[in-house]
Amino acid sequence: MSEELVLHEDPRSGNCYKIRLTAALLGQPLRRVGYDILRGETRTSEFLARVNGNGRIPVLQIGARFLPESNAACWYLADGSPLIPADRFDRADMLRWMFFEQYNHEPNIATLRFWLLYLGESNLTANQREQIAMKRAAGEEALRVMDEHLVGREWFAGHAVSLADIILFAYTHLAEAGGFRLGDYGQVCRWLRRMAALPRFEAMDEA
Amino acid sequence: MSEELVLHEDPRSGNCYKIRLTAALLGQPLRRVGYDILRGETRTSEFLARVNGNGRIPVLQIGARFLPESNAACWYLADGSPLIPADRFDRADMLRWMFFEQYNHEPNIATLRFWLLYLGESNLTANQREQIAMKRAAGEEALRVMDEHLVGREWFAGHAVSLADIILFAYTHLAEAGGFRLGDYGQVCRWLRRMAALPRFEAMDEA
Repeated sequence: MSEELVLHEDPRSGNCYKIRLTAALLGQPLRRVGYDILRGETRTSEFLARVNGNGRIPVLQIGARFLPESNAACWYLADGSPLIPADRFDRADMLRWMFFEQYNHEPNIATLRFWLLYLGESNLTANQREQIAMKRAAGEEALRVMDEHLVGREWFAGHAVSLADIILFAYTHLAEAGGFRLGDYGQVCRWLRRMAALPRFEAMDEA
Repeated sequence: MSEELVLHEDPRSGNCYKIRLTAALLGQPLRRVGYDILRGETRTSEFLARVNGNGRIPVLQIGARFLPESNAACWYLADGSPLIPADRFDRADMLRWMFFEQYNHEPNIATLRFWLLYLGESNLTANQREQIAMKRAAGEEALRVMDEHLVGREWFAGHAVSLADIILFAYTHLAEAGGFRLGDYGQVCRWLRRMAALPRFEAMDEA
């Protein structure tokens, strides 16, 4: 890969951490450019025009091209590596867990962490406060589905660590900051320890 | 492909239609098994044990194996075909739009259609009713991002139709049932017509 890779990120975001962890496990250097989403630094007209018209991070910059969406950026980095299974069913099954993460896991588990840890419960709108119980239940359901899937398995898809594990690891290992009790999910806890024991594993540098 | 492919679906679901449309464009036969989600037919103990512990459809059955998540099922069908770009950046960029669809588009545009067309506004909970304005604004923002991206482009990723187009087509072409005005998005309207003109295109059989 000859083009420089630049990660536009907020270091506190689990979605950004996914990309750093993928790069770390691959031994791929990344230059990091930080933004503070709480100060609106990804909503400036320059950011919207140059980096992402959607106003979101992370964005992976590949030379002069920009790739938003954390899970797509992880795929770009891992394309052609053992982090994407070679078997056709396993590859689709890995993507299944990556879409599950964006639809069933992140909007509940990551959002509650963001609301409770960064915004603070007293600063939430009435409508957000009313959604807490629903997001709590949906997040617990996502953890339950993961826990059941891991019975008799070491990794989410195929027979080795893949992007599915990296992507689910990001916000699962931070779930207690959103008020979830990880101790209730024994298979998930054992899998989190397997992840942290991987060669070249890098912890998130800010919680 | 020697194993029989079975689609477990509700024909009214745009997520199920994505898979049928992918199969149609590929000329791939699918056997269809229908469920009525409004009657809870995907929450029975048999469905949960055999088809999907997550209680959701669509699920693509490949021989004796089950693959949930509509976008992952489309990937399985299209793997190795021209519906997935051969170029590394374009392939990741296609996935970018597939994740965008699940995170920014479907929860707003598809959910409003489901609430207004199938549940009926008068049957919504107070919390759901309060979320309508937020989902309306987020859905309009998703359509705006799509419309801007299509300026000077025929397709979402790379230089030909790909899974990104199929997946975004499903709920975009149904958006008016959720109260969105597609006429406000001229590029999107032209792209919808390009999609419907594709060889082997199949319309959704129930709206």
